[in-house]
Amino acid sequence: MACFIYAIFGSCKDSPVGPTAIAAILTRENLHNLGPEFAVLLCFLSGCVELLMGILQLGFLIDFISGPVSVGFTSAAAIIIATTQIKDVLGLSFPGSKFLDVWEQLFEHISETRLWDTILGFTCMAILLLLRKAKDISVGPRDTIGQTRIQKVVNQFLWLLSTARNIIVVVVCAVMAYLFEVHESQPFILTGHVKPGLPPFHPPPFSAQVGNHTYSFLEMSSTLGSATFVVPLLAILENIALAKVFSDGKAIDATQEMLSIGMCNILSSFVSSMPVSGALSRGAVNHASGVSTTFGGIYTGILVILSLQFFTPYFYYIPKASLAAVIIAAVVFMVEFHVVQPMWRTKKVDLIPAFATFLSCLFIRLELGIVIGIGINVVFLLYASARPSVRVEKAMSPSGCEYLLITPDRSLVFPSVEYVRNVVSKAGMKLGSCSVPVVIDSRHIQGADFTAAKGIKSLIEDFVKRNQPILFYNLKPSIVEIFQGVQPKDFKYCQNESELNELLKGKQRRATVA
Amino acid sequence: MACFIYAIFGSCKDSPVGPTAIAAILTRENLHNLGPEFAVLLCFLSGCVELLMGILQLGFLIDFISGPVSVGFTSAAAIIIATTQIKDVLGLSFPGSKFLDVWEQLFEHISETRLWDTILGFTCMAILLLLRKAKDISVGPRDTIGQTRIQKVVNQFLWLLSTARNIIVVVVCAVMAYLFEVHESQPFILTGHVKPGLPPFHPPPFSAQVGNHTYSFLEMSSTLGSATFVVPLLAILENIALAKVFSDGKAIDATQEMLSIGMCNILSSFVSSMPVSGALSRGAVNHASGVSTTFGGIYTGILVILSLQFFTPYFYYIPKASLAAVIIAAVVFMVEFHVVQPMWRTKKVDLIPAFATFLSCLFIRLELGIVIGIGINVVFLLYASARPSVRVEKAMSPSGCEYLLITPDRSLVFPSVEYVRNVVSKAGMKLGSCSVPVVIDSRHIQGADFTAAKGIKSLIEDFVKRNQPILFYNLKPSIVEIFQGVQPKDFKYCQNESELNELLKGKQRRATVA
Repeated sequence: MACFIYAIFGSCKDSPVGPTAIAAILTRENLHNLGPEFAVLLCFLSGCVELLMGILQLGFLIDFISGPVSVGFTSAAAIIIATTQIKDVLGLSFPGSKFLDVWEQLFEHISETRLWDTILGFTCMAILLLLRKAKDISVGPRDTIGQTRIQKVVNQFLWLLSTARNIIVVVVCAVMAYLFEVHESQPFILTGHVKPGLPPFHPPPFSAQVGNHTYSFLEMSSTLGSATFVVPLLAILENIALAKVFSDGKAIDATQEMLSIGMCNILSSFVSSMPVSGALSRGAVNHASGVSTTFGGIYTGILVILSLQFFTPYFYYIPKASLAAVIIAAVVFMVEFHVVQPMWRTKKVDLIPAFATFLSCLFIRLELGIVIGIGINVVFLLYASARPSVRVEKAMSPSGCEYLLITPDRSLVFPSVEYVRNVVSKAGMKLGSCSVPVVIDSRHIQGADFTAAKGIKSLIEDFVKRNQPILFYNLKPSIVEIFQGVQPKDFKYCQNESELNELLKGKQRRATVA
Repeated sequence: MACFIYAIFGSCKDSPVGPTAIAAILTRENLHNLGPEFAVLLCFLSGCVELLMGILQLGFLIDFISGPVSVGFTSAAAIIIATTQIKDVLGLSFPGSKFLDVWEQLFEHISETRLWDTILGFTCMAILLLLRKAKDISVGPRDTIGQTRIQKVVNQFLWLLSTARNIIVVVVCAVMAYLFEVHESQPFILTGHVKPGLPPFHPPPFSAQVGNHTYSFLEMSSTLGSATFVVPLLAILENIALAKVFSDGKAIDATQEMLSIGMCNILSSFVSSMPVSGALSRGAVNHASGVSTTFGGIYTGILVILSLQFFTPYFYYIPKASLAAVIIAAVVFMVEFHVVQPMWRTKKVDLIPAFATFLSCLFIRLELGIVIGIGINVVFLLYASARPSVRVEKAMSPSGCEYLLITPDRSLVFPSVEYVRNVVSKAGMKLGSCSVPVVIDSRHIQGADFTAAKGIKSLIEDFVKRNQPILFYNLKPSIVEIFQGVQPKDFKYCQNESELNELLKGKQRRATVA
């Protein structure tokens, strides 16, 4: 469903909208084992939130998920997904999806490990990782023009082998399992029966029966809780990130993307889907395969429908261990430990939100982890806006008048103005002599607000009381207007150096006369 | 208790620490009619939070209460306090403290209005407002030097009359009520019995019995809820604001103030006090009276103790209407409608947090209102950091090379970098010709983070793909280091104009050769 809808509304040709690993793990965490109705409702609600974000132009919210937070989250999600699959590789069976739970149970059940499932799982993983590398092998010269025809065919074959590695492994394993089944000596745990055919088209469930309790719409929504916002945010984040990677520098219409993903989710919920979004790995396949418009999604959609209609009986034979191997081999590359080094080189403090997100995703809860990460990052941002750096230096005007030059490095807004006022006051008083004028270089002050204007007014009053001259240099006319709104007395400012020198000369003369 | 403690630890000579109107109304709102134990515990917890904020140097949090939010909150609190007193002025009696509730009940009970209480109440109010003006009257010349002795005495008497107006009105009314009582014809509702003597010294209550339910410490704390943070924040805010007003421009040691107020609250809770803080109105009286050290608090404290010990029997005769008049005449000046005009002149958008705070304080809840106001204000701040203004203009180098000059107006941080990247990309592509170099004037970029470095790297890659030159001008060495952390290829930058011209010349030559 999502493929077809995105083909109509989407703006990124490479985006293959559908279920993703991140969406799946988030959905699973928030179902609290209450059944698929909740996943479908989550899909519907996510769509509504995305549509709303598109309509209200709230795309800027996505920008608040910083690189470090996103890396921490993705890595933790990948590790959690891989963890939940290990038991299938080993042929074990126990409930639980929490990171620590799973590891605890793994060690408890480790004696029940099944030999053949383990061998199959690890073999599949090894083959998958080798095949993944296959597309980097190039027979003959690097340049396609210099290659012979056979070399070209071999290279293309290697590329296909590498790209289609998942399906190849799964099909081979399923055939193997089928043959064992025919000889009635099945060594593997199989996927088992999968409901065939297309899902019915009906509205998403607005109530659900679990055990003896009927959940109303409100109860269902409150059970889903923060997932209703985290799932859409991450869906949009992933889709926009993917669109950017393959856009060759063209600007992305984030609003259009939010609207399309929203439509995809809302309509997908009518066919009992879990939340959907674009996936980077599938997008890379699309891009490499030469997809050139969003119509590519129609082919994907048709293939999915054909599979559902005709191939489900064969899903029975897919060994669980090989499926788990496919998942692990895919997600293991989402763990981005390699960004720690550049992060250390660029800004060490960014490692704090990264690790905070990573650890809280892993040990507390995925959505909570990302919220904590964003929170820490926003606190950094707010702290920076509350505590600007202010340069204080002594300077001399051409006319030989000494003055104190104070340069705040950013806009004056409510959290920072009192701090700047303190710094300026202290610097002014430290001088000892009240006849030395203080000049505030306002070149970096791009904006101000009412609180700032009031603070500046008090600052000027303090200086007037002390009989120390204070003047504003390089002050933008728009800021002058804001400051004048509170009608400060003795507010002196100038836009350029010659005006400054004139003003300083005046001060000096007056000081000399006095 | 607070007076004595502050005399030792405090740093502002004029700050008279004690119960304030704001603290009282906030405490009342959060007791949920559960009794005084909760107020005492709130005092203790507030003290702990303040002490902790002092130790952890969290003074910058106070700066996030902007002027508009503070004005909105104070005005709403004043109106609520005045509203709750109107019933006493009219001699009515009904429960309820919520703004809308009180007005509803006022209209329901309006027929029960008692004539003499109403007359007394309004008379007291009129007298108080007149006496308030008395200190502005100056007999003889404005300058004290030119005044005769009699003129000086008259002026000092007027000032005393004005400053002591509350006690004068209360004493006169109490004497009147006493005389009526003697003649057994009491027309007023009186305050009634007040428990005499000093409160016992014992630890604050960590459990409370209300009806049949015993509240544990945790239950009490969760009942107090957000008040545990809002009360200390406002206490510190009021005390620091007051200290600043009377500091004559000297810097305030906010940490010291937080520690002192914290100590005051913790120790006050041992004598069954409600939360305390400095009050601006009392501070003004202290300042005008010529208090010169914090030792002034010792006098205040001794007077309070003497009153408690010896004067409580006389409190019985104070008419409720006159007390209500005193409160109304005091808080009515806390309603700051007059700042709407300067706010409109300085920054109109600041009216949004001001009115949002005012209305939600009035109609929802006081603490919730201030939290909503801070939230809106922070969203403004975050939006500004996510959407910097970027100036795009065509320029010509001295060597005759045309280029596009793009100037972002603030630091590149995670919420803004993708936006800036989009703007630069769009501007670069709009040019039509890829041979026109794009120069990013980074003079206002004071900081950057990992996300910004990654964004800049992608931006450079996009330009390299298009074969369009991009270079950074005026880039600070610290930012160069951050950008180089992610190892961007073809990253060209220069610190000054001559370097820029050299680089542009190179580009031009290459373009011409091509």
